[in-house]
Amino acid sequence: MSLLDLILSRAAPVPSPEEFGTYLFVGPHPDDIEIGAGATAAKLAAAGKKITFLICTDGRYGDSHTELKGDDLVLRRKEEAVASAKALGVTDVRFLPYLDGVGYGLDELRRSVAEVIAEVQPEVLFCPDPDVDSECHPDHLNVGRVCKDLAFCASHAGLMSGMGLPAAPLKAVAFYMTARPNRYVITSPALLKLQLDSIFLCHETQFPEGTADRKQIPLYLKLRSRLFGLRKLRAAAEGFRVLGRTQMHCMPEAGR
Amino acid sequence: MSLLDLILSRAAPVPSPEEFGTYLFVGPHPDDIEIGAGATAAKLAAAGKKITFLICTDGRYGDSHTELKGDDLVLRRKEEAVASAKALGVTDVRFLPYLDGVGYGLDELRRSVAEVIAEVQPEVLFCPDPDVDSECHPDHLNVGRVCKDLAFCASHAGLMSGMGLPAAPLKAVAFYMTARPNRYVITSPALLKLQLDSIFLCHETQFPEGTADRKQIPLYLKLRSRLFGLRKLRAAAEGFRVLGRTQMHCMPEAGR
Amino acid sequence: MSLLDLILSRAAPVPSPEEFGTYLFVGPHPDDIEIGAGATAAKLAAAGKKITFLICTDGRYGDSHTELKGDDLVLRRKEEAVASAKALGVTDVRFLPYLDGVGYGLDELRRSVAEVIAEVQPEVLFCPDPDVDSECHPDHLNVGRVCKDLAFCASHAGLMSGMGLPAAPLKAVAFYMTARPNRYVITSPALLKLQLDSIFLCHETQFPEGTADRKQIPLYLKLRSRLFGLRKLRAAAEGFRVLGRTQMHCMPEAGR
Amino acid sequence: MSLLDLILSRAAPVPSPEEFGTYLFVGPHPDDIEIGAGATAAKLAAAGKKITFLICTDGRYGDSHTELKGDDLVLRRKEEAVASAKALGVTDVRFLPYLDGVGYGLDELRRSVAEVIAEVQPEVLFCPDPDVDSECHPDHLNVGRVCKDLAFCASHAGLMSGMGLPAAPLKAVAFYMTARPNRYVITSPALLKLQLDSIFLCHETQFPEGTADRKQIPLYLKLRSRLFGLRKLRAAAEGFRVLGRTQMHCMPEAGR
Amino acid sequence: MSLLDLILSRAAPVPSPEEFGTYLFVGPHPDDIEIGAGATAAKLAAAGKKITFLICTDGRYGDSHTELKGDDLVLRRKEEAVASAKALGVTDVRFLPYLDGVGYGLDELRRSVAEVIAEVQPEVLFCPDPDVDSECHPDHLNVGRVCKDLAFCASHAGLMSGMGLPAAPLKAVAFYMTARPNRYVITSPALLKLQLDSIFLCHETQFPEGTADRKQIPLYLKLRSRLFGLRKLRAAAEGFRVLGRTQMHCMPEAGR
Amino acid sequence: MSLLDLILSRAAPVPSPEEFGTYLFVGPHPDDIEIGAGATAAKLAAAGKKITFLICTDGRYGDSHTELKGDDLVLRRKEEAVASAKALGVTDVRFLPYLDGVGYGLDELRRSVAEVIAEVQPEVLFCPDPDVDSECHPDHLNVGRVCKDLAFCASHAGLMSGMGLPAAPLKAVAFYMTARPNRYVITSPALLKLQLDSIFLCHETQFPEGTADRKQIPLYLKLRSRLFGLRKLRAAAEGFRVLGRTQMHCMPEAGR
Repeated sequence: MSLLDLILSRAAPVPSPEEFGTYLFVGPHPDDIEIGAGATAAKLAAAGKKITFLICTDGRYGDSHTELKGDDLVLRRKEEAVASAKALGVTDVRFLPYLDGVGYGLDELRRSVAEVIAEVQPEVLFCPDPDVDSECHPDHLNVGRVCKDLAFCASHAGLMSGMGLPAAPLKAVAFYMTARPNRYVITSPALLKLQLDSIFLCHETQFPEGTADRKQIPLYLKLRSRLFGLRKLRAAAEGFRVLGRTQMHCMPEAGR
Repeated sequence: MSLLDLILSRAAPVPSPEEFGTYLFVGPHPDDIEIGAGATAAKLAAAGKKITFLICTDGRYGDSHTELKGDDLVLRRKEEAVASAKALGVTDVRFLPYLDGVGYGLDELRRSVAEVIAEVQPEVLFCPDPDVDSECHPDHLNVGRVCKDLAFCASHAGLMSGMGLPAAPLKAVAFYMTARPNRYVITSPALLKLQLDSIFLCHETQFPEGTADRKQIPLYLKLRSRLFGLRKLRAAAEGFRVLGRTQMHCMPEAGR
Repeated sequence: MSLLDLILSRAAPVPSPEEFGTYLFVGPHPDDIEIGAGATAAKLAAAGKKITFLICTDGRYGDSHTELKGDDLVLRRKEEAVASAKALGVTDVRFLPYLDGVGYGLDELRRSVAEVIAEVQPEVLFCPDPDVDSECHPDHLNVGRVCKDLAFCASHAGLMSGMGLPAAPLKAVAFYMTARPNRYVITSPALLKLQLDSIFLCHETQFPEGTADRKQIPLYLKLRSRLFGLRKLRAAAEGFRVLGRTQMHCMPEAGR
Repeated sequence: MSLLDLILSRAAPVPSPEEFGTYLFVGPHPDDIEIGAGATAAKLAAAGKKITFLICTDGRYGDSHTELKGDDLVLRRKEEAVASAKALGVTDVRFLPYLDGVGYGLDELRRSVAEVIAEVQPEVLFCPDPDVDSECHPDHLNVGRVCKDLAFCASHAGLMSGMGLPAAPLKAVAFYMTARPNRYVITSPALLKLQLDSIFLCHETQFPEGTADRKQIPLYLKLRSRLFGLRKLRAAAEGFRVLGRTQMHCMPEAGR
Repeated sequence: MSLLDLILSRAAPVPSPEEFGTYLFVGPHPDDIEIGAGATAAKLAAAGKKITFLICTDGRYGDSHTELKGDDLVLRRKEEAVASAKALGVTDVRFLPYLDGVGYGLDELRRSVAEVIAEVQPEVLFCPDPDVDSECHPDHLNVGRVCKDLAFCASHAGLMSGMGLPAAPLKAVAFYMTARPNRYVITSPALLKLQLDSIFLCHETQFPEGTADRKQIPLYLKLRSRLFGLRKLRAAAEGFRVLGRTQMHCMPEAGR
Repeated sequence: MSLLDLILSRAAPVPSPEEFGTYLFVGPHPDDIEIGAGATAAKLAAAGKKITFLICTDGRYGDSHTELKGDDLVLRRKEEAVASAKALGVTDVRFLPYLDGVGYGLDELRRSVAEVIAEVQPEVLFCPDPDVDSECHPDHLNVGRVCKDLAFCASHAGLMSGMGLPAAPLKAVAFYMTARPNRYVITSPALLKLQLDSIFLCHETQFPEGTADRKQIPLYLKLRSRLFGLRKLRAAAEGFRVLGRTQMHCMPEAGR
């Protein structure tokens, strides 16, 4: 870290993702929020925070391990997502109608997410990190980019008025599935178990018994959780790349 | 720096941003050029260089601190931008008609900037760095990306002819508001003061007395200027990520 | 490398770009594949692999060093590309009809490349690295982004069915012209010579005797080849950033 | 790692500390070998390797937690060391007669260790790393330096003949208590438990119930073991800085 | 910083050099303490801490800029040292009788410093960092090594009893003139001025008007002070490499 | 490199090892100077510089590959060293009478080297780098440490007068066999060949045909020479860690 980075990080510290009251978690498909931030969502829900999940595409092509296809699968995945959120303690789950696999224009996706932001009035957005050079799935990159844009724009009355929407009190964005976490939410083995159950017990069309993912994803999440936990001298943690309002604009050093 | 990077940086050195005769500075909003490169613009103007400022959006949503709204604000901000440029010694200030907050398509923005390049015939472009992972403002990213594209394309007669435009003698792009400066322009405390005055005295709709920005931005700019100055054993400097023609294409090592 | 990166790199190793049977090399213009991966293509061809070259734009604006213009040049460059591929041992060369210099929409480019993937059924894609911060040529960035997207999507039956196409057995993407190679293909001075001949003898409209590129590109390629070769304790090698299926999605650590 | 380091590490790989037949572990005080390399010693002993422990000082000043003083403590600590080694599977334990706390000259210490090397004829030495900038205990630095010197000299007939001693077949030195491990011996939770028992149950004059060390050292050793284990995708490991004959002399790159 | 380093630095934080009550500053020559830690000494003195300065050699060869030679110079430098300490607020200044330029054996130097430690009973030692690879002056390396050794040994009753001396309550060592500071003492421009005056006004035999040092040392100290100050968001600071009792022994990670 | 390091390296640049007139190369054994700095010595000799070689031990234990033993070998190695130096263009070769393998006290070695310095009056010393953590040979570490000490002390009239010797105009020390070169002397393939011939043709008792060293050392030296050459955009170079007078004392940042 250069001296300039160090000074800025001390003069304008990145906010903690736990210090807010109203949260909007945005996921590209019905199971991504759980994988990327499930333990944190459960912790926040247990702490009485107001939480909304927004799922942007219908996940209709997540059909490798299920007999269900098309609209039938879409319907089932909605049920799975609602049940999974409930397991984490979240009851407000919303769905955008977009088709899995880039079945939308970026402008309409942006407008749809902006509308939910305008209604939910969150203080912080959780979304996939769009600046991960190895991520190839276009829905992840698109949702991440749109949310990053709105994390800044949606708190400006003027910029939102251009879309005919009211501003929201957004103060931070927390990118999940990130390669450069800068804030860690202490969780616990119990919260990690809750997260894994929400993924594997609830999203059974995606992760039936016997699939490789059923073994590898828990291993990966446990390993990450334990290593991030060690950083905080605790048993478990989730890591996020967080930008507060100060970091979001004209402070390039925050990007390193 | 790897050995390959080192060899290439010595074999094909990045040009100095001061070695050219004709300059085009491109800003997303009416005050960005001053914040990102104001001291350098003033130094170059004082040295008799030919300089044009191009402002891409009308900044109509920069209305947090002013009673003026909409077209009235747009008009006032144009006046502020002209006065501010003048304070820096720059009299050729041009405006694109696009609405603040992504009020344009990327293709039309690209074409409009290409037209100005074709007319001004600059040797170097100054623009925001589009490769800053913390920058969330879409106008900054869009203007940066379009300029980066044209920094390469606009010097190729063929590529410009596709748009019915003549080529320009572009030899370099200098990204301001960057996290990875590789060239430093020595300025001075006097030039820094000129820059700060151009920002705070001229753009009074944006930075009236008593706002937080009025305190924080000068602190940030002074700190940066002093630290970059120290690298050159001088009192003040501005830093840019510069790519010459050799670095712009098929030399991936220049991106590290 | 963080402990997490290290563990993941050992638990889920990036595949070798040589372990496949069917290859699709995608180039923005008629000479890019040769420059970016020519020695590797020749090695794979000599090993009896099934190889297709796909050239996305017609290169009509590569007319700085030739009297030929427009469609005449396009025709000649096709002949050059076919001859050059043949010199490397590759006979299946395909062309998309797009104009040089962003003469296409991203959606149509994506669909066209997807169609070729559906037909060729490659196990690995070679394409320009779209995550190189110094690359300014829009065709390189566009082709790289589209291929990165399809490297993931084209192996999912559902995602391809949305385009009415069959899935392909894609297992990896290998980015050439990259700043962060993670896999090295051992070549040889003879293969390097073959590569240079394919570039300079075959693409004579681009690199006639006496041009600066005619001297600088060979120097650059030789230097890279020798330095990458040293990493493998050999005389020559080409380097690529390779992502296997595990690295392409939801494993952000693979992006560092 | 520079390219030169990389090439050398591949051309002349550091040997594995497990590939030898005859081992000499040298400790400054009666409990240091167990703390620094106990699990590895137990693994090697179980594998039937020939192992000798050599303890250089009498540890008479390790009297903070015991009523025993002076020669009485020295006697007891010898018994503890023998019992502890036995718990690890090592029966050949030797003692130099030097007083704790620099109660020797460096020359006589060097000669004494050389005599044991000449007799035991080890292929590898284990000793404290003398190049740890935070280590302040002079006995640790002295023993480390003497062993590092002899790791090289004791295999040269000429150099040993100057002391009237025969050469030994030394091929490597493995520094324990090191900040820069480059080789990891996979152990196991059972071996770690054996190590901790050898320390805490056998050396009871040093670590009686209720002392701070009794809690902190196991935590530290478990944490290290787990993190080093993760590097090898295993549950536990010990880390050492190993130099083979090639690395010991005139290959400065091996020191990074 | 590796994960292990990070965990240890949080689990066992390095103490602040300001948290103690009784201080012993050790200098190789009569002006080194002032150069290495003068502002901190003045701050601590002003805070009412008990401070002793110990000067190990007589500085008789610091005669480049003075007519005084030999014992005359020794006498004068003692007076300068006493005056300089007084300017910083320190009245207890002690002198060892050793000749400048390695005019002592390491064992007698160690014993002499141990005697002062036994008498003064400090909680922390300040001394030159002996692990600076560019430092060539043997007196600096010797004094640093002896103090580093005693920082550990002098708090152990047993180890001191071997020298017939009582133990001291040493809890930390703070190395000055270090390349790897890990703790920063916030000072101020006034304290920096006090430091520079103590050096240049008091040690006039060493730094008469017109010498190069008279210009360069203040520049160096001001620059360091300002840059270290910036790390703490203050105008001035001094940096030290501090080891607490936990870091001094068997915790190699503290050496990185 | 930290900002402080950068500023200091620019404000007080390390001198070039080629800028002096009188050179003293010090080697632990009769062949070390050639291996560590032979090409540079030859280049300097060809440029008419005044050069002395000083060999500290008699190398009597370098008898692995020769029938000669003891004093007979000592005699032969002297002849080899003289012939080898002559091949490099150096005729002033001096020998200290010390036995190979620490056959000296550090104080007498220091005094002997100081005497040669006093007589030769060099401006720069070349010697082995004593701060290489992998070097285990005590003669290399001892000679390096003594020379590092004298590089500073021998230019101070006072410090030398304590030994009854006149001062020398020493301005720099250049460490060979170093892991952290900071200055590179451009050589050439011809100079490299001269160096290799001086080693392998002249020191035939050490490197007879058919030994492993006869193959490995040339490979290592060629590789180093080529890689260091690449840094200077040349075919060959030797690298040294150089300290000028400014860097030798009280400038800890020069040690990084």
